[in-house]
Amino acid sequence: MSKVTREIDLYKKLLEKYKEIVLLNSIEMNIYWDMDTYMPEKGVEQRSEELAIISGLIHGKTIDPEIGALLKEIKANENYEKLTPVEKRNIYLFQRDYDRNTKIPKELVEAISKQSALGNSIWKKAFAESDYELFKPELIKIFELMKKLANFLDPTKDPYDVLLDLNEPGFTREIVDGLFDELRDGLKPLIKAIVNSPKQPDYSLIERACPKDTQEKLSEELAKVTNYDLNAGRIDETVHPFTTGYYDDVRVTTNYHLDDFSSSFFSVLHEIGHALYEQYLPQKHKYQPIGYSCSDGFHESQSRFIENFIGRSSEFWQYFLPKLKAITGGIFEDVELDPFVRAINRVIPSKIRVEADPVTYSMHVIIRHEIEKDLFAGKISFDDLPQIWNSKMKEYLGVDIENDAEGLLQDVHWSGGGFSSFPSYAIGNIIDGQLLWKMDQEIPDWRKDMQKGGLNKVIDWLKTKVHQMGNLYDPLELVKKITGEELSTKYYLNYLRKEYSKIYELK
Amino acid sequence: MSKVTREIDLYKKLLEKYKEIVLLNSIEMNIYWDMDTYMPEKGVEQRSEELAIISGLIHGKTIDPEIGALLKEIKANENYEKLTPVEKRNIYLFQRDYDRNTKIPKELVEAISKQSALGNSIWKKAFAESDYELFKPELIKIFELMKKLANFLDPTKDPYDVLLDLNEPGFTREIVDGLFDELRDGLKPLIKAIVNSPKQPDYSLIERACPKDTQEKLSEELAKVTNYDLNAGRIDETVHPFTTGYYDDVRVTTNYHLDDFSSSFFSVLHEIGHALYEQYLPQKHKYQPIGYSCSDGFHESQSRFIENFIGRSSEFWQYFLPKLKAITGGIFEDVELDPFVRAINRVIPSKIRVEADPVTYSMHVIIRHEIEKDLFAGKISFDDLPQIWNSKMKEYLGVDIENDAEGLLQDVHWSGGGFSSFPSYAIGNIIDGQLLWKMDQEIPDWRKDMQKGGLNKVIDWLKTKVHQMGNLYDPLELVKKITGEELSTKYYLNYLRKEYSKIYELK
Repeated sequence: MSKVTREIDLYKKLLEKYKEIVLLNSIEMNIYWDMDTYMPEKGVEQRSEELAIISGLIHGKTIDPEIGALLKEIKANENYEKLTPVEKRNIYLFQRDYDRNTKIPKELVEAISKQSALGNSIWKKAFAESDYELFKPELIKIFELMKKLANFLDPTKDPYDVLLDLNEPGFTREIVDGLFDELRDGLKPLIKAIVNSPKQPDYSLIERACPKDTQEKLSEELAKVTNYDLNAGRIDETVHPFTTGYYDDVRVTTNYHLDDFSSSFFSVLHEIGHALYEQYLPQKHKYQPIGYSCSDGFHESQSRFIENFIGRSSEFWQYFLPKLKAITGGIFEDVELDPFVRAINRVIPSKIRVEADPVTYSMHVIIRHEIEKDLFAGKISFDDLPQIWNSKMKEYLGVDIENDAEGLLQDVHWSGGGFSSFPSYAIGNIIDGQLLWKMDQEIPDWRKDMQKGGLNKVIDWLKTKVHQMGNLYDPLELVKKITGEELSTKYYLNYLRKEYSKIYELK
Repeated sequence: MSKVTREIDLYKKLLEKYKEIVLLNSIEMNIYWDMDTYMPEKGVEQRSEELAIISGLIHGKTIDPEIGALLKEIKANENYEKLTPVEKRNIYLFQRDYDRNTKIPKELVEAISKQSALGNSIWKKAFAESDYELFKPELIKIFELMKKLANFLDPTKDPYDVLLDLNEPGFTREIVDGLFDELRDGLKPLIKAIVNSPKQPDYSLIERACPKDTQEKLSEELAKVTNYDLNAGRIDETVHPFTTGYYDDVRVTTNYHLDDFSSSFFSVLHEIGHALYEQYLPQKHKYQPIGYSCSDGFHESQSRFIENFIGRSSEFWQYFLPKLKAITGGIFEDVELDPFVRAINRVIPSKIRVEADPVTYSMHVIIRHEIEKDLFAGKISFDDLPQIWNSKMKEYLGVDIENDAEGLLQDVHWSGGGFSSFPSYAIGNIIDGQLLWKMDQEIPDWRKDMQKGGLNKVIDWLKTKVHQMGNLYDPLELVKKITGEELSTKYYLNYLRKEYSKIYELK
């Protein structure tokens, strides 16, 4: 056997190992989906045992010493340099995951998993009773465990940076701080101007009884309009909407509100944005490390682009309002385009992140980030978190938080150790602004097309520029690759100022 | 550590090993269910890869040498005799499975799996083109592989007996022959008398347009009436109805025919019969070898008891006909009890097993068995199978088979090596007759209760006598345990003669 052949064999063998992990992950996703959609309620106990065993199997596969040996052998081989950049990227990503997984002692993995389950159940109780003090001890425990984990991954770095890198490779607290400071300072005056505008939209245009089966038809229509392939996907109901799946089987979920169709409507558009990313990943790299999305932030950019930049645009509704009227049969017959578009773009500083409008949304994330980084820097105490949360909400959004459930406790993430996962939500917005700027240059007539229902051009652009890139680049590189510039908040802020100045008639 | 403690530890460890296998099987069942119900069509390729990997993992777990070592150590331990019969049964069953799994070389497992996939796809083609010659080479290949498998399992026994024992432990060809000869000889004159009876039912009472959502409501009502717990189950649509699941998550599927509600109605009852068995298995033995059903034949006895003995009885319809009328809103308003019950008990010798009525059904199975055993005995040639099939159909049922698709090729089983799996279908009927005889003695008023919708008594009886026994006994033992007698066809034949003499007014 020649050395080149041997090298190829090793690479093939490595990818086969990876494929097994991908397939088991895909199985796990499917039984999670089932749990959140169709599983009968009594099945929960055996399902949790199934999930425990499959996640254990996956973990076992990810720390298989043979992977380490293969990686080592491939890199030491004299033909390593002859591999293509794509092959090298696959090797790099697999090595990175393998290092991460093998650096963490099994005991710590188990302790985190145990504390997450416990923390989650106590968070539920604390949330229901709006009692931060009940949750505090668990929060401290998982925080310490996650710091430990960060230390195992890289003891030379700031733990927060280490954790952040898991969600957004290449990002640091410094980078996020820079972006978020600009964003916060840009949003503050805009929000103030909007709140003080005498031109407030009439939301009663939206809040009209709309039966579930009608809303289901709207969901199907959205799939059609956006090219979300229902032969490789589904739309089902759940409590907290999510998207799950891989390439040829990517499913979205939603939750229908009978008195406000827009809740599910924009949720479906959001999830379809995620789903398109997964459906349009590069088929030739399926089952490979690069056959995944770039980062959580980039994923969020895709969902929010479809939901907000497209779904709340006047051009989209020029096309879709007649469709809405036809599908809902009379419910919205009297509604006119301009007041309707204003209504779906209503901005109201509010308490709950997941219900926030596109303008105030990032503020919730920024507040969470500011608290997280100060926690990791030891600048603030766990005792003070609710007050800090509440005072920032007052300062940034003018909102009075009356209890912990509508304040600090609203999000589940921390209970499972999900620190540093919040920034991605706002990073997605920032990326969107920059993508939009580039898109306007490269396909200037995309908005005009959209007025006639032609979403192909914009979806294809996202597909080519983002989805098809898979995980070839880290997020900051990909942004530069696509737009030619470093990531900056200016494009997103420009977009918001322009769009919402129109809607609220700001001077 | 004392020796008793050590013994208990080993037993516990053994059961933990078993639980892992059960959980992985349960995951596999769920992703199969998904594939047959909600999976988008393009997902099939990645799903088949998922199924390959999970079945490989399961196989690996079942041949884990640690299981063999544990079993050996437990049995050699001086405290082995102190174990309870239940514990010993668990050990016996696990040993039996382990021996089976380890005796078969990996290459043979793979060859069978490969040939099954190939054979299945060629069977589909042959079935569509009604061309046995196309399928014949594949049939011969899988037949030889299955004989090989039987030889690895037990070279001292007749291969057919070895394979039969996998489905119906304790049964032999001799036993099946004895039962089936009696059954065939008993059915022949009965079928003849029925066919010649001048009192033929009016099936047009059934064949009326009935919309899907109405039939769905009927399915839900059937769940309620039979105590099929929908908090631990579901009813969904599929192409070929089946039941799948384990204990607290057991799902049935059906296929609605808009011009004949009875097709799905009895199919749902049938599947509910299977589902009740799984839902009512002994909770304390969940995840243990004895926490499974007794055999395929016993499973079939439960489905067919609910479908036929209950679902086609005059007493059941005394209660359910008004319900049917109410739920279907006018469609069956004019229908009267007696002609309706005759119609749903219509007996027509026909070509397709799965569409056969309760009386002629067993004949299809008997014909298949007679051919299978002669094949294994080398008495007949693969070249002659279609003619043999067709002439037996003519002889036993008076039916003229015009092509292979409606004849020998109608069932998929053989393409995957499922020889010897057919007898269970008719064994279920035979068991049912004997259960009914005992039930009539022990709870004589169950039919009277049923007239008022009271199915609790009969379901509870089945639950206590059959479901709760799990896999404590092999099927022939369980029959004797429940009824006090050896399995015999006389009770089933008596039942058929009595019921259908009434319906067809035979003298």
